Amino acid sequence: MKQVYIDNAATTPIRDEVIEVVTDVMKNKFGNASSSHSFGRLSKALIEKSRKRIAGFLNVSAGEIVFTSGGTEANNLSLRSAVRDLGIKHIVTSKIEHHAVLHTLWQLEKEYGVKVVYVDLLPNGNIDFAHLESLLKTSNKTLVGLMHINNEIGNILDLKHVSDLCQANGALFHSDAVQSVGHYELDLQDIKLDFLSASAHKFHGPKGVGFAFVRKNSGLKALVFGGEQERGLRGGTESTHNIAGMETASAISIGSLEKERAYIADVKRYFIDALTKAFPSVSFNGCSGIIDESTYTLVNVRLPIIPLKVDMLLFQLDLKGIACSKGSACQSGSSQKSHVLAELLSEEDLQKPSIRFSFSIYNTKEEIDYVIDVLKSLAKT
Amino acid sequence: MKQVYIDNAATTPIRDEVIEVVTDVMKNKFGNASSSHSFGRLSKALIEKSRKRIAGFLNVSAGEIVFTSGGTEANNLSLRSAVRDLGIKHIVTSKIEHHAVLHTLWQLEKEYGVKVVYVDLLPNGNIDFAHLESLLKTSNKTLVGLMHINNEIGNILDLKHVSDLCQANGALFHSDAVQSVGHYELDLQDIKLDFLSASAHKFHGPKGVGFAFVRKNSGLKALVFGGEQERGLRGGTESTHNIAGMETASAISIGSLEKERAYIADVKRYFIDALTKAFPSVSFNGCSGIIDESTYTLVNVRLPIIPLKVDMLLFQLDLKGIACSKGSACQSGSSQKSHVLAELLSEEDLQKPSIRFSFSIYNTKEEIDYVIDVLKSLAKT
Repeated sequence: MKQVYIDNAATTPIRDEVIEVVTDVMKNKFGNASSSHSFGRLSKALIEKSRKRIAGFLNVSAGEIVFTSGGTEANNLSLRSAVRDLGIKHIVTSKIEHHAVLHTLWQLEKEYGVKVVYVDLLPNGNIDFAHLESLLKTSNKTLVGLMHINNEIGNILDLKHVSDLCQANGALFHSDAVQSVGHYELDLQDIKLDFLSASAHKFHGPKGVGFAFVRKNSGLKALVFGGEQERGLRGGTESTHNIAGMETASAISIGSLEKERAYIADVKRYFIDALTKAFPSVSFNGCSGIIDESTYTLVNVRLPIIPLKVDMLLFQLDLKGIACSKGSACQSGSSQKSHVLAELLSEEDLQKPSIRFSFSIYNTKEEIDYVIDVLKSLAKT
Repeated sequence: MKQVYIDNAATTPIRDEVIEVVTDVMKNKFGNASSSHSFGRLSKALIEKSRKRIAGFLNVSAGEIVFTSGGTEANNLSLRSAVRDLGIKHIVTSKIEHHAVLHTLWQLEKEYGVKVVYVDLLPNGNIDFAHLESLLKTSNKTLVGLMHINNEIGNILDLKHVSDLCQANGALFHSDAVQSVGHYELDLQDIKLDFLSASAHKFHGPKGVGFAFVRKNSGLKALVFGGEQERGLRGGTESTHNIAGMETASAISIGSLEKERAYIADVKRYFIDALTKAFPSVSFNGCSGIIDESTYTLVNVRLPIIPLKVDMLLFQLDLKGIACSKGSACQSGSSQKSHVLAELLSEEDLQKPSIRFSFSIYNTKEEIDYVIDVLKSLAKT
């Protein structure tokens, strides 16, 4: 059966070059990076080369990159330590953050009594900057936690604007950039945020590895205690093969970013055009239908024309070999509604099936044609 | 140059079969296990099969295995939650635990004011059970944290005895079993401990994956918050390839345990005999020189005959292609003395070079002959 994987915001196929590197490291560079002998030094050198290169892509220094088991751990590391060690008492976030941020903040609220407030959203899902500024002016010891690109609706936050606002008001700024690292160039000398999280498997790297950017001299402390790995910020033997794989995935993504962005944006544009032609009454959630105001990697569409509940629609698409989702993968197994769409849509619109399609370089226009054909056939059921 | 890797307690070479599985999963099963479509279900099935199989090896149920990024995270997960969520106020541990336990406990002492007391050690490094029992009788809301096999001196704790003591005194029992899982059979229906930590890279699996055994209905909560992965006990997209690799490594280790144990024990015996013949005044630290009272995978030897400081000795061995260490890999890069040997040896003996040699199925008697020859030549310098 034809298989169309169009759920790249959940995870991406791993590039062949990445698989080769991961395999080579497992075979030939198995030493523990903390060992002082040649086997250990080889691994250590590999990890430090990866750190330096990844730091370079963000225009930061190598010592500001902390390797973690993924984006979720990176979020937990920065947010917990900000509250526990840096004296943060107030957190400003939004109700449409990923659960890796929201659930962590709710836990910190319980444990430390830190106050979490939610910035207003505009109807399109963007942050209300006037409200953000007023919140920052009236609180101190504050951390702002706002994601760069929303994983469900693709809205893009102006990181530079928010980091300037935070700096002007003495607040720290943490951004979950899991959907943007590897897809957008970020210059963290220009964007003066304090903490950022990234995950390799969102840009064709291995699962189980990511990193936290932690601005120098921030005073951040560990989440996982043990050995002196990661300059004491993260105990545990490094996953050398995964880290080397992440480096390769970063290097390829950054190296071919413009070319791949153009390709994927073209696929997205083609999808939007074809879908709109097939279903003139289709709606796009958040900013995802506007090419210049959302990430080029995803659309989130509301399909009132299809008389199926969203879970049944996904099931029917799956039967036809089409893999897409109703939002964050973390929730897609459950029957829970998207907490993101719940913030943005009317009760009536929430009843209509909304689906996220997310693209990569491995998708083709032929695949899009197939998806549209299947959607058309389902509309007739 | 000849290369002899004889530091298997730090990390082990990855088995070819494991590398094959990891590579296959990266290539062909890249879906996010939380996705509801066929790509996601394939990954989910793989993870749950791994969980069931690993649980089977320990005679526990699948729901009691929580996959983590390694042994250190598993230790942090259980110890932090025991203090934060289970009302633990007293912790009994020993001064020769791994830093993944000790440093975590010191942090919990600071954060929560939990009282950490250290059980007495016998001169050979074994736990003084009479003292342990007296400590348990006079404290409540207590957790005992003692490792199964000491990573530096190879002493083996009688887990059954300690878990019975804990049960009799209403204490919880956590064991860092990073050096024993994959090398010893453990029946956790018989040994009624509450929490156990393991790490795949210690038994020829990939780095960056391990698991916590968490006894059913313990009430333990997460360390890393986010999605609902691992039944809410560990947020973050699963490292499917690493988990599948750990399953394969476990299955091979357990399947060939008796055969491999016999082989490695024979190598260890050969090493002890040859070393004692070459250096009649050599001493063995802890119980490591006694075959039946220490793990078959390592020896820790004190070499008063060699007129070199330990770091210089390791350097000379490294130049000859021999990879071994002075103790825990986490410390071997530093000039710190082993905190384990510091507890057991006199000031005078601490000045003499002590080295840990740790074996695997990939070591041969020819390699041992070479190591002894090199040591002999260094004794003459």
